[in-house]
Amino acid sequence: MNQYLVMSVVPQNFLNHISLDCVVFGFHDNQLKVLLLQTKETREWALPGGFVQNNESIEEAATRVLKERTGVNNVFLQQFHVFSKPGRNESNPIIRDMNKTYSPEVLEWFNNRFISVGFYALVDFSKVTPMPDANSATCEWESLKEIKSLIIDHMEILNKALETLRLQMSYQPIGYNLLPQKFTMPELQKLYETILGRELDRRNFQRKILSFKILKKLDERKTGGAYKSPYLYKFDLERYQKALNEGLSGKW
Amino acid sequence: MNQYLVMSVVPQNFLNHISLDCVVFGFHDNQLKVLLLQTKETREWALPGGFVQNNESIEEAATRVLKERTGVNNVFLQQFHVFSKPGRNESNPIIRDMNKTYSPEVLEWFNNRFISVGFYALVDFSKVTPMPDANSATCEWESLKEIKSLIIDHMEILNKALETLRLQMSYQPIGYNLLPQKFTMPELQKLYETILGRELDRRNFQRKILSFKILKKLDERKTGGAYKSPYLYKFDLERYQKALNEGLSGKW
Repeated sequence: MNQYLVMSVVPQNFLNHISLDCVVFGFHDNQLKVLLLQTKETREWALPGGFVQNNESIEEAATRVLKERTGVNNVFLQQFHVFSKPGRNESNPIIRDMNKTYSPEVLEWFNNRFISVGFYALVDFSKVTPMPDANSATCEWESLKEIKSLIIDHMEILNKALETLRLQMSYQPIGYNLLPQKFTMPELQKLYETILGRELDRRNFQRKILSFKILKKLDERKTGGAYKSPYLYKFDLERYQKALNEGLSGKW
Repeated sequence: MNQYLVMSVVPQNFLNHISLDCVVFGFHDNQLKVLLLQTKETREWALPGGFVQNNESIEEAATRVLKERTGVNNVFLQQFHVFSKPGRNESNPIIRDMNKTYSPEVLEWFNNRFISVGFYALVDFSKVTPMPDANSATCEWESLKEIKSLIIDHMEILNKALETLRLQMSYQPIGYNLLPQKFTMPELQKLYETILGRELDRRNFQRKILSFKILKKLDERKTGGAYKSPYLYKFDLERYQKALNEGLSGKW
């Protein structure tokens, strides 16, 4: 079992008071999934997270944590909000669990006030191998709509990530990291509907998404279907990247 | 002189390793202005910033700092990015200046690695009374286009704030905190042009901004002008707020 003992490191190698939490989204079976860890003793659910080493930026720390939990690199990973309510990490069940294993010095460090930088990641579900950290029993994909409660303020972090992703869809393209390389228009629409949590009109969706000019229609239909199989599309990566940087809705 | 001695506080009351920096934008004489502090000894320019007290969130800390530097409350203030490159706050001229005034313990604290949360604020220029902090000679508005260099990574923070503001204009309304309560269409267009740094077509701008339905046309013209004075508008605050939350470019 490939378990990374991130939490067994000596506190002196990490910045005090600063942590990060990752909301990792994947798309599978027409459902939006989130990667979660389960605590060993109380069997509660938590977002994957970690701390910042003395010699790394917070982005490098998040990339490292994500690689440790998923096995993948080069994913779309973006900081979206800092969570800093005083007392937010009091009564963290992970620290209760840790009482049996760690020295008083390490426990004291974990019991400090931590401000957490939230990151969200969009990953290719099929490429991820979920791996628990040293303080967790399991690491699993959960369907977003099945997630009822998480430890400390992780539910707030998840909701804020989702809110950011939904707002971002109104001005930036999404899908490149969530869909296979070739996809049909109904598959792309389903992704949008899943994230937004509601149904969209087929013709309006198609007109709007085509108007952004980020798609290439292929001279190829989805195989294995009926006579009228839908055409396949792929993203025009140059234009996709441009829209990521400049926004979709065009020039003023 | 109303100087707030934020930096003379004892480090124990503040979280180590975490700071915040504020990019405060104001609009005056058809120019975008940024509030800056000048260091006492080296006369370099810096963004207003501060630290997080043990009992406050990072938003509360930013609100406090902004109130101290501007005298105003209730401004549009938003965190936009965390700056965390290792070594970013090495050779900070403010700390060189402080050598003469502060104890070795305080200086040691300031010399720690700091991760900074960037906030940007949009304020009513006419209501602000710039006030330097204990480590600065002056606090002044500078025209954005005149700002050539800032201490440590503050130029990067300013540029990222501007980039965020420009992207945000493509999906959220702006102007409420930057313009007087009643304004003309040319004044609103000038604000957009100033932030974007380029001219816009008058008719396209008017059509697009009206399509968002966030403006109320008043039965009133700008006084003091010529025969054909332009009509005055104000924001429909209910719809403005809705567009802030849901994005401008409409439903999918």
